[in-house]
Formats: sequence, structure tokens, C-alpha cells
Amino acid sequence: MARWEPGARDRLVVAAVDLFTEQGYDATTVAQIAERAGVTKSTFFRHFPDKRELLAAGQETLGRLLSDGIAEAPGNATPLEAVAAGLRRAATAMGPGNRELAPRVQAAIAASTELQERDALKSVGLTAAMAEALIARGVPGVTAALASELGGLAFKRGFAEWIAGQGDTSDELARCAVAALDELRAASASLG
Amino acid sequence: MARWEPGARDRLVVAAVDLFTEQGYDATTVAQIAERAGVTKSTFFRHFPDKRELLAAGQETLGRLLSDGIAEAPGNATPLEAVAAGLRRAATAMGPGNRELAPRVQAAIAASTELQERDALKSVGLTAAMAEALIARGVPGVTAALASELGGLAFKRGFAEWIAGQGDTSDELARCAVAALDELRAASASLG
Repeated sequence: MARWEPGARDRLVVAAVDLFTEQGYDATTVAQIAERAGVTKSTFFRHFPDKRELLAAGQETLGRLLSDGIAEAPGNATPLEAVAAGLRRAATAMGPGNRELAPRVQAAIAASTELQERDALKSVGLTAAMAEALIARGVPGVTAALASELGGLAFKRGFAEWIAGQGDTSDELARCAVAALDELRAASASLG
Repeated sequence: MARWEPGARDRLVVAAVDLFTEQGYDATTVAQIAERAGVTKSTFFRHFPDKRELLAAGQETLGRLLSDGIAEAPGNATPLEAVAAGLRRAATAMGPGNRELAPRVQAAIAASTELQERDALKSVGLTAAMAEALIARGVPGVTAALASELGGLAFKRGFAEWIAGQGDTSDELARCAVAALDELRAASASLG
């Protein structure tokens, strides 16, 4: 009977990030990642199509949560209030494990153009998910595009504040992301 | 419209885009691109380090123009007025050749994840160039981040309008990009 290994996916991400940091992204093979995580190569491929996708782990989940949060915001919520609801929902996907791993993930990304490209496309995907959810609420396209860019920027800035700060809970991330969105809204008054 | 006469560099871009569209990005080699363009492989490598960078052609130029336009805007220009100056300057890098090639470039990008990633990172680079130039003018970081996102979005939306429209000049692109920026500024009033 095949043994189901809870946490194999997370162990693969941790192992990969450590190896990327120790020896670089290009020099790291799927076999090495699997070995470090204590799983077989086929287990790796059950979770990820390749080593690059591994760092995009969670993108689909994040996109869905952003989208659901926006869809379920009260009918009279403004576009940015709906985006804030999306950010709060998305934050629930992140906890102490992500907080602990984040500096190593960011170091691995900073050191690899290929990972930067993957990461940039991930941001585009999350922004698009928010824009679609806003349009489905009846927000005009240009306002939806703008509000979702603000949402993406707020999540990025809030995430950076979260990993630089003391708290490591989902609630603390939600607080940082919504504070960043408020700050961006305030700044929009001084664009001229 | 004046007839566009491409040089070796532009011929390589045209040949590559056509081959990417005909047979896919992965199946296309540097040798095939050079042959189609009627130049040697060494000519290819004098212009581009590899086939992927070929579609990023002009990114450095665009970033520099955006940055110069922002830096040279009048001292009393608002952040968005400075961004508009950057967009106008950047538009000068584009003309009938780019306009003619754009639909094929976009089709090639739409068909390849690798090219989408490269393109997404290119956008991040252009936004960063604008943000830096705004910060150098004394614009606070959060306002600079927001204004440069609006600039990136305006360039993208203006470019899409340009390639869907009749005019193919730099001036027409500048008009479309600045109109898109105005539209985004107006939309920012309805973010809530």
C-alpha cells in the first residue's frame, strides 16, 4: 500500500529553496530536491511539473482567494473595499511557515532571472484574477484595471512589511496588506 | 503611410516573430532566424545574446526614455504630469515598423509561457525605471510606486489602442498613451 506523506509538498518547497540558495537555481536538479526532501523523484513530479513551477506553488490558491474575497464583498462595497476583502481572504493562505521561508524564497528569486520572470508572470496572473472579479461586480474595465494594480501593489508592499516585522500570523499579514492599500489610496490624492 | 525599410536588427526581429508564429517558439533555432533574415549567425549574436532576448529588444531604450522624460519634466510638474512626459518620450522609440510587427509579436507571446514571463519581467523593469526617476524628483516612494504603475498600465493600454487604430506614427502612440493615463487618473476618483 502506498504511503501517503502529509507535508511532502511543503518539504519539497523548503528543500528546493535551501538548495537554490546554497548552490544556485541552475545547478539544482529535481533529483537533489527530492533527495533533500526525503521523497522520490516521482513524488516530486506528482506535485510539480518542474523546478521552476515549484516556486509558483500556491499561485492558483492565491488567485482564487483574491477572487472569492472580491466576489463576496457586500454589494455596496467600493472597488477598493472589495479589493481589501480579497486581500484579507488571500492572507488566510499564508502563515508562520510562509513567513519563515519568505526571506530564503526572495533570495533565491533575486539570484535568478528565470525565477524573476516566473514571479513577474505570477503577479500579472493575480492582478488579472482581481480585475476579472471586479468586472464581474459591474466595475468598469478601466477602474477594475486600476483597482487590481493597487491590490497587487498593496499585497506586495504588505507582504514585505510582514516579513520585515515581528508578527507571523495570517491576521498580521492581512493587517499589513490592507494598511498598504489605504496608504496607496491616500497617495492617489497626490498624483496630480 | 511611409514605407518602412528595416535594417538587419529589425529583419531579425521580423524573421523570429514569423517563425515563432509559424512553428512555435521552442522549435525555432537561431540558425533558422538568421537564415530567414538573410544574415549570418554571427550577425544574430552581434545583436542579441539569444532568441528570447530578441523579443525584449528595445527594453533598455524604452526604460531610458521613460526615465529621461520624467527627469526632464518641468520642476513644478505633478507626478502624473512627469509620467506623461515619460510616456511621450518613450513613444518616440516606436514607429510604423513596430506598429506593423506588433500583432505578430503579441501572437508569439500569447503562444509561449517563456515569452510571457520575459514580457512580464520587462514590464516590471519599465515600472521600476519610472519609479526611480520619480523618486529622484523628490516624489515620496509610495506615490512614485503608484504613479509608475499607472504609467505602465497607460503605456500598455495606449499601445493596444494604437495597434488597433489607424495611425502608425510615434505621435499617435504618444496621444493614445497620454489619453490612457488621463482615463486612469479620472478612474482613480471612483476607486472609493
